[in-house]
Amino acid sequence: MRGNAISLPVILLNFKCYLEATGSRAVSLARHAQEAARKHGVSIIVAPQVADLRLVSQETEIPVFAQHIDAITAGSHTGHVLPESVLEAGASGVIINHSECRLQIGIIEDVISRAKDLKLRTAVCANTSRIAAAVASLEPDMIAVEPPELIGSGIAVSKAEPEILTDTVTRIRRINSEVIILCGAGITSGEDIKSALALGAQGVILASGVVKARDQAAAIDELASACR
Amino acid sequence: MRGNAISLPVILLNFKCYLEATGSRAVSLARHAQEAARKHGVSIIVAPQVADLRLVSQETEIPVFAQHIDAITAGSHTGHVLPESVLEAGASGVIINHSECRLQIGIIEDVISRAKDLKLRTAVCANTSRIAAAVASLEPDMIAVEPPELIGSGIAVSKAEPEILTDTVTRIRRINSEVIILCGAGITSGEDIKSALALGAQGVILASGVVKARDQAAAIDELASACR
Amino acid sequence: MRGNAISLPVILLNFKCYLEATGSRAVSLARHAQEAARKHGVSIIVAPQVADLRLVSQETEIPVFAQHIDAITAGSHTGHVLPESVLEAGASGVIINHSECRLQIGIIEDVISRAKDLKLRTAVCANTSRIAAAVASLEPDMIAVEPPELIGSGIAVSKAEPEILTDTVTRIRRINSEVIILCGAGITSGEDIKSALALGAQGVILASGVVKARDQAAAIDELASACR
Amino acid sequence: MRGNAISLPVILLNFKCYLEATGSRAVSLARHAQEAARKHGVSIIVAPQVADLRLVSQETEIPVFAQHIDAITAGSHTGHVLPESVLEAGASGVIINHSECRLQIGIIEDVISRAKDLKLRTAVCANTSRIAAAVASLEPDMIAVEPPELIGSGIAVSKAEPEILTDTVTRIRRINSEVIILCGAGITSGEDIKSALALGAQGVILASGVVKARDQAAAIDELASACR
Repeated sequence: MRGNAISLPVILLNFKCYLEATGSRAVSLARHAQEAARKHGVSIIVAPQVADLRLVSQETEIPVFAQHIDAITAGSHTGHVLPESVLEAGASGVIINHSECRLQIGIIEDVISRAKDLKLRTAVCANTSRIAAAVASLEPDMIAVEPPELIGSGIAVSKAEPEILTDTVTRIRRINSEVIILCGAGITSGEDIKSALALGAQGVILASGVVKARDQAAAIDELASACR
Repeated sequence: MRGNAISLPVILLNFKCYLEATGSRAVSLARHAQEAARKHGVSIIVAPQVADLRLVSQETEIPVFAQHIDAITAGSHTGHVLPESVLEAGASGVIINHSECRLQIGIIEDVISRAKDLKLRTAVCANTSRIAAAVASLEPDMIAVEPPELIGSGIAVSKAEPEILTDTVTRIRRINSEVIILCGAGITSGEDIKSALALGAQGVILASGVVKARDQAAAIDELASACR
Repeated sequence: MRGNAISLPVILLNFKCYLEATGSRAVSLARHAQEAARKHGVSIIVAPQVADLRLVSQETEIPVFAQHIDAITAGSHTGHVLPESVLEAGASGVIINHSECRLQIGIIEDVISRAKDLKLRTAVCANTSRIAAAVASLEPDMIAVEPPELIGSGIAVSKAEPEILTDTVTRIRRINSEVIILCGAGITSGEDIKSALALGAQGVILASGVVKARDQAAAIDELASACR
Repeated sequence: MRGNAISLPVILLNFKCYLEATGSRAVSLARHAQEAARKHGVSIIVAPQVADLRLVSQETEIPVFAQHIDAITAGSHTGHVLPESVLEAGASGVIINHSECRLQIGIIEDVISRAKDLKLRTAVCANTSRIAAAVASLEPDMIAVEPPELIGSGIAVSKAEPEILTDTVTRIRRINSEVIILCGAGITSGEDIKSALALGAQGVILASGVVKARDQAAAIDELASACR
């Protein structure tokens, strides 16, 4: 990516605040993701914690997203995440409004605007099909629908609630024909990805399915292989 | 510091989200601070943005604080700042409850508790003498009183409102005899530091006075020289 | 209203937290609004503070909206605004996501859902045309676009930035053909309302233009007369 | 109360957002509390929802507290709770920083200040003994310690964790000799109150123990009788 178009399908791997994906383990996981991406010719993006963005960017060549940025410009904002700081640390995009980091609707628009100014990609999360449609009007690069009750459950949204996904795709496409649609929550296997893609998603977002897997390398490899 | 006691007086230099202290410029500023600390035998701590913690820690030997951490343990907390992530990135302490990043009182206690578990130092900000006294009951390592109306003003609290500082010292000492007391807001010159120390502060916290100075190296050098 | 359709155009008069519209003065202002509504055959809704909802509902027959409700069901929610409490106090609707009370996007959906369950009308505020379009996907009864920089300015959005209003109408109508579109910010005169209606708005939301007027009765009378 | 000193011991009955204590049922419950207070010569304060403050104040003579106010002065604050609005609605005090409505530490100080200006009593909640001590420096009229894990549990803090209460009393008294100390969480019986008073509390705060009781009148009567 890093300036280029995102090839589809895409896997967005969110490291969250898991110790298994912090610091040196963030680099290790990013390397596994990079290998899987290359082996299977699949687009994988990793989203480490802000403290690890530069390290992962330096040690790998895989596209890196921040998990959050604040809708601020440079100045007196102690404790906030300046968009320029993640850009300089190597991020090429950002996750916005994750279920664990919900934002006011006006802030989502502001963050998208700041990100576009810096040519950072934007992936906005939505927990229902209606919110996904609402977000489509804000014109991010990607929308990820994730029913919160399935996050981390091991029960894939694409299997347990396929109608959420098809409904989301329908609602978004009425409003925005270009945005990339991801689905998330409970994705752990290649089958989960295949069913998601079959229902109209162009990729998936996941975390624990890989990060907490006994064998992270095998887990991401299986997912990537299912995308071909 | 990094495990040792903090020698006094101490200057806590907050990089905030200024571009003049982001990325490579964070390293440059931290080096100036390190030189001044060594030249004058004064304790200086720098607080870069989270994305820059590891870089500054690797490129310098000066003590590094995070500007904020969240009161979380490892897990599903997309977009948050895991205490372990800043520790592994090289931080030896953390600023808590800065005027630009206010926390609920229960969260302050939780953050202090998490920080202590990880042997991270804690510097809790307070914008009035009463709040400083309240914070003293939570037993952080340092309390920094900063009247918000003077932050970034160039008018030093130690000169403009000395009674705030003496009142703060009196109130804190009734409750907590060990906590290190810093004062902040409007500090720009060696004179400002001298007046702060004369009024009972054991150090200062500042940002724009150095970060936005035309000559950052000269600005921090002057401040450090005033501490002897 | 109170169960019936909202006749158009409509004036939504937000009492905010002005002393001139608190307690007994809330009743007085609501009476002026009621007189103007009757005299000119215009639909006016008043939105007093939560503490005054019952008093205004009892003392007048004008439709009453709450300024905010929380997305909660009955239970342990000290300090929150239970939707049922404003309903029982006489409210027939609610303002949601006002510029001074911004909500997370998921909460907006939840509040709309709770309100619909109780047959409370919903008027969701948006500060840009894009956010107005986003909100349209959440299917409230009304959307009020209010550029924050003009709120309380005395400079009417319908005159100063007519393109915001026409752009908002265009964007909303692509998505939602039924929602009532209000415009706000800086409305003080009948001329302001006429220009708003001419640009495609079906009503206005305002506060200080009436609440802070030297003669509240005359101010609301002029506005109502302009709606015919 | 209403201007007079609070007689001790005191029972602060929080109606929360329970339907059993909303609207007309708030009046009914307040009447039960008033009867129990008179019968047993005990001080009882009720805290209905904001929408019900005026109704309860008008229909009873029992002291009424708001469950929350915002740290604002009159003006453009849509959806907020203006201190003057609850005062005019009949409140004589306010609960601050309840476990379900946590505030930033600076806001707690501001709310106490606003309340004192209006001669509203202040009861600040704290979920640990350290936070209770911190709050003591802010000089409210009452501090209520409530371990969150016991709220609504039916297991009384005064029995399950007596050391929390004695520790709280000790810590508060080092700092503030005048503040009234309440304890809460899990209080349901007269025995719970007696043990709380024996451990140094001067009253209790409770909600579900009475509000959700099959017989509200009997429940509050038992509690009041135990205070003699």
